[in-house]
Order: sequence, then C-alpha cells, then structure tokens
Amino acid sequence: MALTGVIRPGHVQLRVLDLGAALTHYRDVLGLIETGRDAQGRIYLKAWDEHDHHSVVLREADEAGMDFMGFRVDSPATLEKLAGDLKASGLATDMQWIAAGEHLRTGKRFRFTVPTGHAIELFAEKEKVGNGMPYENPEVYPDDLKGMAPSRFDHCLLYGDDLDGTMKLFTEVLGFELAESVVAGPERMHIAAFLTCSTKPHDIAFIRHPEKNKFHHASFLLDNWGEVLKAADIITKKRVSLDIGPTRHGITRGETIYFFDPSGNRNEVFSGGYIYYPDKPPLVWTDDELGRAIFYHDRKLNENFLSVVT
Amino acid sequence: MALTGVIRPGHVQLRVLDLGAALTHYRDVLGLIETGRDAQGRIYLKAWDEHDHHSVVLREADEAGMDFMGFRVDSPATLEKLAGDLKASGLATDMQWIAAGEHLRTGKRFRFTVPTGHAIELFAEKEKVGNGMPYENPEVYPDDLKGMAPSRFDHCLLYGDDLDGTMKLFTEVLGFELAESVVAGPERMHIAAFLTCSTKPHDIAFIRHPEKNKFHHASFLLDNWGEVLKAADIITKKRVSLDIGPTRHGITRGETIYFFDPSGNRNEVFSGGYIYYPDKPPLVWTDDELGRAIFYHDRKLNENFLSVVT
Amino acid sequence: MALTGVIRPGHVQLRVLDLGAALTHYRDVLGLIETGRDAQGRIYLKAWDEHDHHSVVLREADEAGMDFMGFRVDSPATLEKLAGDLKASGLATDMQWIAAGEHLRTGKRFRFTVPTGHAIELFAEKEKVGNGMPYENPEVYPDDLKGMAPSRFDHCLLYGDDLDGTMKLFTEVLGFELAESVVAGPERMHIAAFLTCSTKPHDIAFIRHPEKNKFHHASFLLDNWGEVLKAADIITKKRVSLDIGPTRHGITRGETIYFFDPSGNRNEVFSGGYIYYPDKPPLVWTDDELGRAIFYHDRKLNENFLSVVT
Amino acid sequence: MALTGVIRPGHVQLRVLDLGAALTHYRDVLGLIETGRDAQGRIYLKAWDEHDHHSVVLREADEAGMDFMGFRVDSPATLEKLAGDLKASGLATDMQWIAAGEHLRTGKRFRFTVPTGHAIELFAEKEKVGNGMPYENPEVYPDDLKGMAPSRFDHCLLYGDDLDGTMKLFTEVLGFELAESVVAGPERMHIAAFLTCSTKPHDIAFIRHPEKNKFHHASFLLDNWGEVLKAADIITKKRVSLDIGPTRHGITRGETIYFFDPSGNRNEVFSGGYIYYPDKPPLVWTDDELGRAIFYHDRKLNENFLSVVT
Repeated sequence: MALTGVIRPGHVQLRVLDLGAALTHYRDVLGLIETGRDAQGRIYLKAWDEHDHHSVVLREADEAGMDFMGFRVDSPATLEKLAGDLKASGLATDMQWIAAGEHLRTGKRFRFTVPTGHAIELFAEKEKVGNGMPYENPEVYPDDLKGMAPSRFDHCLLYGDDLDGTMKLFTEVLGFELAESVVAGPERMHIAAFLTCSTKPHDIAFIRHPEKNKFHHASFLLDNWGEVLKAADIITKKRVSLDIGPTRHGITRGETIYFFDPSGNRNEVFSGGYIYYPDKPPLVWTDDELGRAIFYHDRKLNENFLSVVT
Repeated sequence: MALTGVIRPGHVQLRVLDLGAALTHYRDVLGLIETGRDAQGRIYLKAWDEHDHHSVVLREADEAGMDFMGFRVDSPATLEKLAGDLKASGLATDMQWIAAGEHLRTGKRFRFTVPTGHAIELFAEKEKVGNGMPYENPEVYPDDLKGMAPSRFDHCLLYGDDLDGTMKLFTEVLGFELAESVVAGPERMHIAAFLTCSTKPHDIAFIRHPEKNKFHHASFLLDNWGEVLKAADIITKKRVSLDIGPTRHGITRGETIYFFDPSGNRNEVFSGGYIYYPDKPPLVWTDDELGRAIFYHDRKLNENFLSVVT
Repeated sequence: MALTGVIRPGHVQLRVLDLGAALTHYRDVLGLIETGRDAQGRIYLKAWDEHDHHSVVLREADEAGMDFMGFRVDSPATLEKLAGDLKASGLATDMQWIAAGEHLRTGKRFRFTVPTGHAIELFAEKEKVGNGMPYENPEVYPDDLKGMAPSRFDHCLLYGDDLDGTMKLFTEVLGFELAESVVAGPERMHIAAFLTCSTKPHDIAFIRHPEKNKFHHASFLLDNWGEVLKAADIITKKRVSLDIGPTRHGITRGETIYFFDPSGNRNEVFSGGYIYYPDKPPLVWTDDELGRAIFYHDRKLNENFLSVVT
Repeated sequence: MALTGVIRPGHVQLRVLDLGAALTHYRDVLGLIETGRDAQGRIYLKAWDEHDHHSVVLREADEAGMDFMGFRVDSPATLEKLAGDLKASGLATDMQWIAAGEHLRTGKRFRFTVPTGHAIELFAEKEKVGNGMPYENPEVYPDDLKGMAPSRFDHCLLYGDDLDGTMKLFTEVLGFELAESVVAGPERMHIAAFLTCSTKPHDIAFIRHPEKNKFHHASFLLDNWGEVLKAADIITKKRVSLDIGPTRHGITRGETIYFFDPSGNRNEVFSGGYIYYPDKPPLVWTDDELGRAIFYHDRKLNENFLSVVT
C-alpha cells in the first residue's frame, strides 16, 4: 500500500465541563453520531463517513481542554516499531502502553508526550462500524444526517512551547512532513508548523506559545463552501459562540469557520484545501504576513485566535 | 514520508488529429497552461496547481487515443526497484527504459504494457516549475486562469480485455489498492476496477472491454460543483461536444461532466469524492446497479459512455 | 405599491392517481408542508417561505394532470375588474365564480379557460399562515425542513394549441409581459411563450402543442445550484423517476432538474435566473436553437420533454 | 405591466478622490464595464447584465461620498406625475429638473432632496446599450467578465437624521413599501428602514444618524455564495480594504461582503435574499437584536459599520 506508517488522525479525547451540554453540542449542532458510552461515563462519537468506531471521546472534567490525540497506524507491526523508535528518539516523555479496551472497541495504544507538552497516541486497531451504508451498491450519503454533519474528524491545532522539538519528533520519528510553516524574525524561527502524514495539507498543527499543552481547536471536514455557510447559520440558530468566519485560510487555502463548544473548547469546520504530495515544495509564511496566512480575507488576526486556548 | 512508492498520475500523452485545434481546446477551453514544445512538435501542458513541468502531452497523429500514462514514484531507487519487480512479475510486456530528456525536463522513464494493452510509465524526476505563485507568502490561486482551470490532472479511465491481469499488476506489483469495483453475473467477475495509490478514490481505473488498449477519458480536478457548472457553461459557449453531465458518480461520489476534445478523446472535469484510506473497506457494485454506479442521478448508462473510446 | 394587478402564481391543483403516494412525494421528497385537508379529501400544501395557506392542492382522480392554476391579485377590487375585463375580452371561456371557502381559507376565485384549454383562476384573499418564523426578529429559515425544501411554488409550463390566443389574453387582459419566446419557421410563428407578471423571468409559460389543456410541469424555487445537486441526490435516494438534469436552461438561465411524481405529473426544482424589468428587451429564440434554449448544456431536447405531458 | 411607477435603482453618482484609482477599482476589482466619459471628466460604468447605458458615475472631488442616487420610472408620464406629487408633498426640498443629456445618453431627471438630506433623482429615459449578448439566441453570460463581475447595481444604504420623513416620502409619494425595519426603545422608534419598489427585499435603505446626507454603501448583485467567496479572494489579492465578510445578513437573508473603494466609499457585493411581494408581512427587528439583524453570524456590529460613512 502506498500510504503507510501513521495514516490519519484517529481520535481526540476532549475534557468538557458538562457532559450533557457537550453531547447536545457535538451530536445535534456539530452533527456527530454517538456510538457508545463506557464505564467511566465517557461518550464516544464519530463523523458519518468514518468507518472506525469513534473519533471523538468526551470526558467530563473540571477543566476544558484536550486529554490526548490519537493517530491510526497501518498495522500492529508499525505500532510496535514506532513505539520503539519513540523510545529511542529521546524526544518523547511519559511513554506508556494503554491496554486494549480502555477505549471502547479499540486495541492497545502507545501514549507519549511530545516536547510541546501534548499527549499523543498511536493505535493500530479500532473496530470498523461502517458509515451507515452497505459496502455493496451504496448511496452517496446516508439519510438523516443532523447539524453541520461533517464527514470526518480532520486535524487538531495545538499550542505549546518547544515547537522545534515537536516538529523534530513528528518529522523524524513519525514520518510526517512540514507542508507549511510560519517563521518570525531575522532568524526565521518557526512559530507555527503544519504537519501532514497523508495528502492533506495538515493532519496536525502547532503554534509556539509560552505554556505547554494547550488546545486550540479540533477540526472537522465539510464538503464545500455552501456547507460552511450552513454551519454558520446553525451556529446562530443554535446560539453557539462564534469565534470567526466564514472565511478562508491562506495556509492550506481551506474555507473555514471557528466556534466554541459549551466548555470553551474551540471547534472548526472547513472545506477545500489543496492536495499535498511529498515532493511538493513546502510553503513558508513570514510573521509580517501572519494575518493573511491565517485569515486570508481579514489579513489580520483576531485577538481570540491567538489567546483563547483550553 | 507516509506516501511512498507510486505517488500520483504524472502525465498522459494523447494523440490528436490536429495539434492547433487540440491546443485551443486544452489551453483555452480546459484551461491548462502550455509549458513547452519539443523537437518532435509535441506540446506540453500543466494544470495550474501542479508543480511539475507538465502533465499532458499532445502528439499529432492519424488516430486519436492515448500513447501512454505515466506515474511519478517517490525516488530513483523506487523507480529501479519497481522496474525490477515488473520484470520479475511476468505481468508486464514491452518493457523499456525511455531516456531522460525524451520528454522535456523529465528524467528516465520505465515504460511497460499492462495486460489490458495499455502503455504505462514510471518516472522519478521531472523539473519543478511551480504553480505560478511564490513559495513564501503566496496567494491562494494565481491571477489570469482561463477556461475551466482545473487544478490538477487526476486520473485516466482505460478500456481493455484482460482486466484481471491489469488489476493484479497494479495491486501486487505497484502497490495500488482496489477502492471500488463492479462485478457481473453469479461468478461476480470484475468488469470495472477503480485503483488508488493515494487517498483519492482512484488514480487509474479500468473497464473490461473486448479490445485492448482503448482510452476512455483523462480527468482533471475542479474545486467544487459550482466550477462543474461553469465548465458546463464553457462547453456550450465554446460549442464543445458534450458527452454527459453535470451529474454525480455513485462510484467515488464525484460531481462530474464529460466532453470530447476536437479529436474525439474524452475529457472529464470533476470535483468532490471521499478520502480513501488503506483500511477503508472496498466498495462493490453489481452490474444490475451499474447505471447508478456510474451516473448516480440518471441511474442508467448512456450508449456513448460504454462504446465511444479512442 | 409598485407591483400591482396579478402579482404571483398562488396555487396549482393537481390530479393524482393515489393520494397517499402523492402526499409522500410532495411532502417527504419535494419537501412541501401539509397545511390542511378538506371535505372532498383534497390535501393542501405550501412551500416553507410562502405566507399564504397553500400553493399546491392534490386531488385524487383517475387521470393525472392539472385541474387549474390560480394567480393572486393585489386586491378584491382588482379581482372584480379583471373578471370584467376577461368577460369583455372575448378570449376566455367557461367563466365562473368559485365561492369563498371552496378552497380552504381562500376567498372567492374567478375561474376561466384560456385559448390553450387550461383553467386559470384569479383570487384576492387567502389566509396568511406565515413561514414558520416570527415577524419580529426571525431566523433566516426554519428548522426541520425536509426533502428538497423549495422556498416557493414558482410557475407552471403548460402545453396547448391556441398559443396566440393565450398569449394575447395574458398580455392584453392580465398585464403579463413576454420575457422570452421561441419562434419557428420563416413566419416566426410563436411556439413557446415565457410570460411574467413580476420581476421573475416567467410566472407561467406555454408551448404550442396539438392537444388542448395539457400539463408539462409545476416548478418550485431552490436557493442555489448546490440545492439542485441535493435535489438530484434525493431523486435517486428515493428512487423518484428522473426526467433530466441537473442542467441549465438557456431561456431564463435557471439551473434545473426535472422529475415525475408517482402519477406521472412532472415537477421541476430550479434556482437562479435573471431579474426581469418591464423595460428589458424581450429575448427570442429560433427553433433551430430550441435545444440550447431549453437545455443549455445538452443543446438538444430529450424526447420526454416534448412528448410526455399529463 | 405589473411593475409600474418607480421600477428600480438606476444609478448612483459617487465622488472619488482620484479618478484613476477609482476606475481601477470599479472596473478591474469590482468588474464594472466602462461605457463613457463626459466633458466634465466623469466616468460612466455599468454592470454586465444591465441594459441601460450606465448605473455608476464617478466624479473626482475633494471629498468622497454620494452626489445622488437615481431611480428609473416606467414612463415620461410617470416622471411628470411623480415630480408633481413630490412638489405637492411638502417632503422634498431643493427640487430641480436636470436637463436631458447632462448625464450621457440619459433623458431629463427630476432631482430632489429627501428629509435625511440625500439627493435623489427620477428619470424615465436612458439609452439601452445591452448586456453584451444578442437578443436572439443569446448565451447565458458574456465572455471576458472581470473581477467580481456583479450582474447589477442593486441598492444603496444611506445614513441621515430625519428617517421618519424620508420613510414617509418613499412610501407615500414614491410608492415604496417597508419590507423590514429596526426599532429602538419602548417607543419603537424606527432606526433603520429597508424599502422596496419591486420584489427585492430592498431597493434603498436608510439608517438614522445624527448627520444629514451620509453615504454608507452602494451594493451590487452576485449570483451566489460561491461568487461572494471569489469576491473575498479578489479583495485580498488586490489588497482592497475589507470592512466585513463573507457573512450573511439577518435582514434580507443576503450573503454579503463589504469593502472600500480607494476613496473610502463603501461597496457591498451580495447574493441571495427572499422574494418580496406587496402582501408579505413586514419584518421588524428590535435594537437588542440589531447585531444579528445586520450580521447574522457574528450577532454583533463591528464599529466600522456604524461609524464609517462618506
């Protein structure tokens, strides 16, 4: 197979202040599908076109934020190999195996902390529950989708301090590539990195920030700009807190809107963006063009975007 | 890197009856950009968001059709390895190395014939000429795009007899996967195969057909369904011969329109389609649902689609 | 007020062979809202953004087709005046007043037959039931819309013999204008007329046809081309009989798809089209360009479009 | 004819600080078509689907803003009648006839000042120059459109003090209707009025403001939300000053983006909005919902929108 190693973002576990309010948001507003609850009370959800059992896990806690983000790898052998590589790299800390079944219908996961302070997981096995349509003679989408109805969990943007270390870990150990980056000052220090393990412009992204382990947003994929408008309308009809949008990113070219879940965790839904290939020259943005890089139309950052994280 | 081996369709060389008329079509109607002409008189073109020197080569000849389709591999080492694998496979015939430079700005290519009779090439080196924008602080698309202005050459659909042999070659030797297929009769014989080497629903496709080495269409990527309408309008404004569309495919879910170049070679422009991952369960269509599989709205094939090939 | 006289198509009463199947189609597939049933068993429906009580009435009968189409006029005084003008014109036959209440929540209607054999009505009063949102601080559309969810009943296309007489009645008595027409032969005989009483490119249209009083289609308004695609997807998901589309009309420029209700009555949903003003020069199409006039992309008529009427 | 009296906004004359910079903006960025220059040096432009000679006139001056806005009436007789009605109304001041030919290819105009201080004109004759396509067998749009390429000049929003007087003049003398309004405080004083003379949600709008005769924006019509995105991209590519958008209005439901010409005059391009009929119940917004009324997604006004006028 041509896509190997780490193949995609597989899940994100989010802390929410009130599980009921969060479920209403992620199921009825965002439009994910609930697939299970575990003995700890965590709620599992998936986007409609994902085949795996879940991609979002909600955990009630006293403080919002991200517990961890997990990536699917192509095989158990790759999982073992990458666990070994991570141990050997000296770049990861707090490494541990999480037993199969700790997440519903999921095999064992290898969890580690990257230099920016975020917990990341790798896993090779999660039960396929399908996308609501048969594998023989399907329709093009299922009936009865709700809310914004994104087709997939797409990526996270995370804020943390040691951006260089995290970039090194993702590119040198996990096989990601730097599709785009933002550099600052005459030394062209990296202040943002957009990393891909596939043909998407990014599968995970990081922005340099004084604190470790902060969560900026989890992003979900829509079909097109018309669906971004529909999402914006839903945000108002449901009185969801809007951050910014609809607009376009310069980085990735994606069409986007940002908003907050009831606990203050930021979500994005977006569409578009180019196809990334490993021989594509990386794009670089300088900090004087950061506004246009992030919000292509406004050409300036809103204060929220830089400072509100969970 | 996560995407390795054969990474994408890199070029298609088409035979056209009149080079001037073909250039007008591919440059002004389809909206490709001319990047060169060689000593043989061949014209080289690229879609605007491709970085390689060319993806379409037009050669004047007495008969329309496809000379060959070429795939980019990730490295010269992979090119050598796959050439060896092809030789060892017993599935390819007419194998030869084409010298570097035979195509403008392109390294050496390994050409072979697959069991359906089509000439396929692999190459590892083609000069990057960029997408008309700087690599630092770019815009989201260049100015002065013309015609339908697809961003990329995406795939070809080819007709030929020994579908099983070609499927075997692409999946077992070149590392492609079968994303979708159509089967006929109680034996569920494959009559169509949609093969991917990436996260696209197909990078090449084949339909079983009594004759060897027939060309059905070359396809180019648009951003969205609104661009498909614009393409349809251009087809009429320029009095291009329409095959069918705008419509949607059941297979791949793509939004599409088909038309003919002045020599009778079929083109497609399309948008949409799902993201393919190697662990996605393959989709199968039965021949009684073939109409819906190909043209999701009409739910029947037009005669042209099955019989007109070059 | 600037728009006076006959102001819009207000309703169409359709004959259906099976009321239950028809209701499923018009409510769940097309997405109209049921607003009542009368003692005769007729079912009343409206599109979501209409404020009047109903715009479609379904009547079970042994033969499909249209009973009549009704237009709203601006006032009871105008209703009386136009009834008198019609009587004086010598162009209408079978004139009668239908008592208030014969249609639910509707005032008295003046019914007459036009030279092409169709029954047309005028009315001045129908109860306002609103569009599902308050008149103070509304949202932009209500929740829980179903199916294709057109916002309005827009127009009908009718087939009949004495096109000249009907054109004369609509333009000279009812104040319509001829926005576009199709002419045939060296005498440029009118074979199609697109008539407007507003700023829409047509509020009613007629095509010359040997038989009197035939119904071609009732049309409903969608927001945009993306909604036309969604309608096309629904047509297939619900296995509705498709006539043609998605495509564009040359006449009106509208983006369109045609399909049939379970009784064989044709429906259209469409979006777009220009703004008509009374000083806009009329457009004329010649019969050699009829294909492009009707189906701008195909540039030829399908046999169904010309021959299948109810 | 069903649409009579004042039928549409016909032109707006804008003051610009530098005629060359303004022409570049209105022709190459907005995408209007230059149709003439007069002896005073004024530049005349039209949107592509307008048939009249011009809809925008640029005049170089020391201060930006609007000289006047003109409405087309249905006939010379109506022009005379409305001039008389205005004189009799006691609501208009500074009334004068402007001679035919003072604007290129335009008949005589009746100019008057409304209570908010704005100069408004009526005219009945302006030469038809067409929309770049023949009246027989046209295409659906001409080739070689540039920039945002709106199809029509649509409306203006003006700021001034005596809103009640201006509303009275437009509704009681000129036959406009109040489609939507914003009211403030327990007395529900009108602070904004959206007035229509057609089936559009507004042909002119006013917001209460301490100063007389201020110009907020001139608005131009796009086909759809995808064109609004294209306009937003052009705004950035051409480094035009963005005000706000892309977003949606609660009032009118239109999809919109605002930006400034080089002199600081605000422009809008928008798509969508409902069809207005004279029997449609008027919509009222209260000032506590003003944010959502104006910017449906943000649900708050940006400071610019309320304070920056020319």
